[in-house]
Amino acid sequence: MSWIVLHIIGIIAYTASGALVAIESKYSFIGIFVLGLTTSFGGAIVRNLIIDAPVSGVWESNTMAIVFVTLTLLVFLPLKWVHHWKRWGLFLDSIGLATFALQGALSAKYAHDHLGLILLSAMFTGLGGGMIRDILAGRKPLALKEEVHAVLTLICGLCTWMGWIHPIQLTLVVFCIVTIRMFAVKFNWKLHLPYC
Amino acid sequence: MSWIVLHIIGIIAYTASGALVAIESKYSFIGIFVLGLTTSFGGAIVRNLIIDAPVSGVWESNTMAIVFVTLTLLVFLPLKWVHHWKRWGLFLDSIGLATFALQGALSAKYAHDHLGLILLSAMFTGLGGGMIRDILAGRKPLALKEEVHAVLTLICGLCTWMGWIHPIQLTLVVFCIVTIRMFAVKFNWKLHLPYC
Amino acid sequence: MSWIVLHIIGIIAYTASGALVAIESKYSFIGIFVLGLTTSFGGAIVRNLIIDAPVSGVWESNTMAIVFVTLTLLVFLPLKWVHHWKRWGLFLDSIGLATFALQGALSAKYAHDHLGLILLSAMFTGLGGGMIRDILAGRKPLALKEEVHAVLTLICGLCTWMGWIHPIQLTLVVFCIVTIRMFAVKFNWKLHLPYC
Repeated sequence: MSWIVLHIIGIIAYTASGALVAIESKYSFIGIFVLGLTTSFGGAIVRNLIIDAPVSGVWESNTMAIVFVTLTLLVFLPLKWVHHWKRWGLFLDSIGLATFALQGALSAKYAHDHLGLILLSAMFTGLGGGMIRDILAGRKPLALKEEVHAVLTLICGLCTWMGWIHPIQLTLVVFCIVTIRMFAVKFNWKLHLPYC
Repeated sequence: MSWIVLHIIGIIAYTASGALVAIESKYSFIGIFVLGLTTSFGGAIVRNLIIDAPVSGVWESNTMAIVFVTLTLLVFLPLKWVHHWKRWGLFLDSIGLATFALQGALSAKYAHDHLGLILLSAMFTGLGGGMIRDILAGRKPLALKEEVHAVLTLICGLCTWMGWIHPIQLTLVVFCIVTIRMFAVKFNWKLHLPYC
Repeated sequence: MSWIVLHIIGIIAYTASGALVAIESKYSFIGIFVLGLTTSFGGAIVRNLIIDAPVSGVWESNTMAIVFVTLTLLVFLPLKWVHHWKRWGLFLDSIGLATFALQGALSAKYAHDHLGLILLSAMFTGLGGGMIRDILAGRKPLALKEEVHAVLTLICGLCTWMGWIHPIQLTLVVFCIVTIRMFAVKFNWKLHLPYC
């Protein structure tokens, strides 16, 4: 139950992040819809194309409904309401990161149960949508600059591979991931590698 | 008959628009070919990937021939001839928009006859090629900034869904779409939504 | 034997070129891995998507191992070592161009033996990875500006189509391609077409 609620929050957060990037890029309502859809479905589409899974599996009707309602609300909401998003944006975005990565890892686990594929799937589902969103907005993909971001999706993949797939365990993983992300941003954690 | 002529004009218009963006971006003749091919086939390729249709269905030999002849002519034509294009560009591009959207909608109708898929297919086929062209040229996709543009592709999808698939009806739809687009550009129509 | 050695050099060269673009773009180690993987596999993935071949055929375990070892070394190597790359970069990159194009042409030949497909496959495999790399780095794709580059991949396709597929013949083709490319860069060869 709690896992499903978290997943819905994650989908709304990713959709809204796409819409906001479109608004910042001065795109029309078409851009808002395209970037919203891209952010919420793009990662899963690329993942399925790469692992030869049918793309039609991505178009799940409940998810579609959530995305379309979110986008329609955002298009008609006054702009100043939208700006309130930013205060909560990072927190909600972290929930999206965790739930998307876990959902990607789960779908890979049911299909193959191969560690490499689970990690790849977790990473693509968690980060891919945002990367395509940034490219469509004419920006350098943020996901390629951040570090902690991507490591967290791999942790989600690892947890799934170890069999933590009960909804309560998934909820716990989301909680940990969000906490680590918020600390990482607050204290500006970085890995120090030679090429830097 | 008239529908086929319009479709050929549409293919030439889209191919030429890709080639012109390549010339403006100072790309080599390779860039001209890649952007010309991308603009004319990119939308259909992405559409087929997303709806799990085989991509090879896109490579229709008559269309290929039209695209290659257009591109070869453009590469060898003196540049000042190419500039004459701009006067007629918007008119021809509108024909392309309508015929590509209708053709996308038709191929979805034959495969599924599901309204959502027809609209999606019309929009992707009409706008997708131009979006990939703009990304390859390092620009923000124009299709995400315009509004009327995208709404017209949805109208094409709607007409197809309602069964207006006789060549004479298709020709009529193209005529209406081109007229609306020219008025929209001339009078600078915009939708006024709160987020603006 | 010599052909396999050349192919390995080519894979390392392409992977390293992706990693270097990531370092120049100030991306994190995630960006280095993503751009390294993209440069070495991206062309083959796009090619397989376009010709309806299964993408999973791309993930060949030996190639994967070479790519991952290269990227891990690059991430941990001191930056000044990396800069030595630049002296040898163009030479190694030319080997990559030739081996990737030949390998793409060979895989198309085994599947279809159709000249058009072989040329397309050679060009996509040779240039596609670099184009996706440049887009992910927020640059205009270099491959669309160069000319000799793309013509050489077509020559590779042509040689394969004519049946020069013995390892010794492949090695000879690589040798010729690299020589032509080095001369082309040194003497700044250009095609003179009207649109320029």
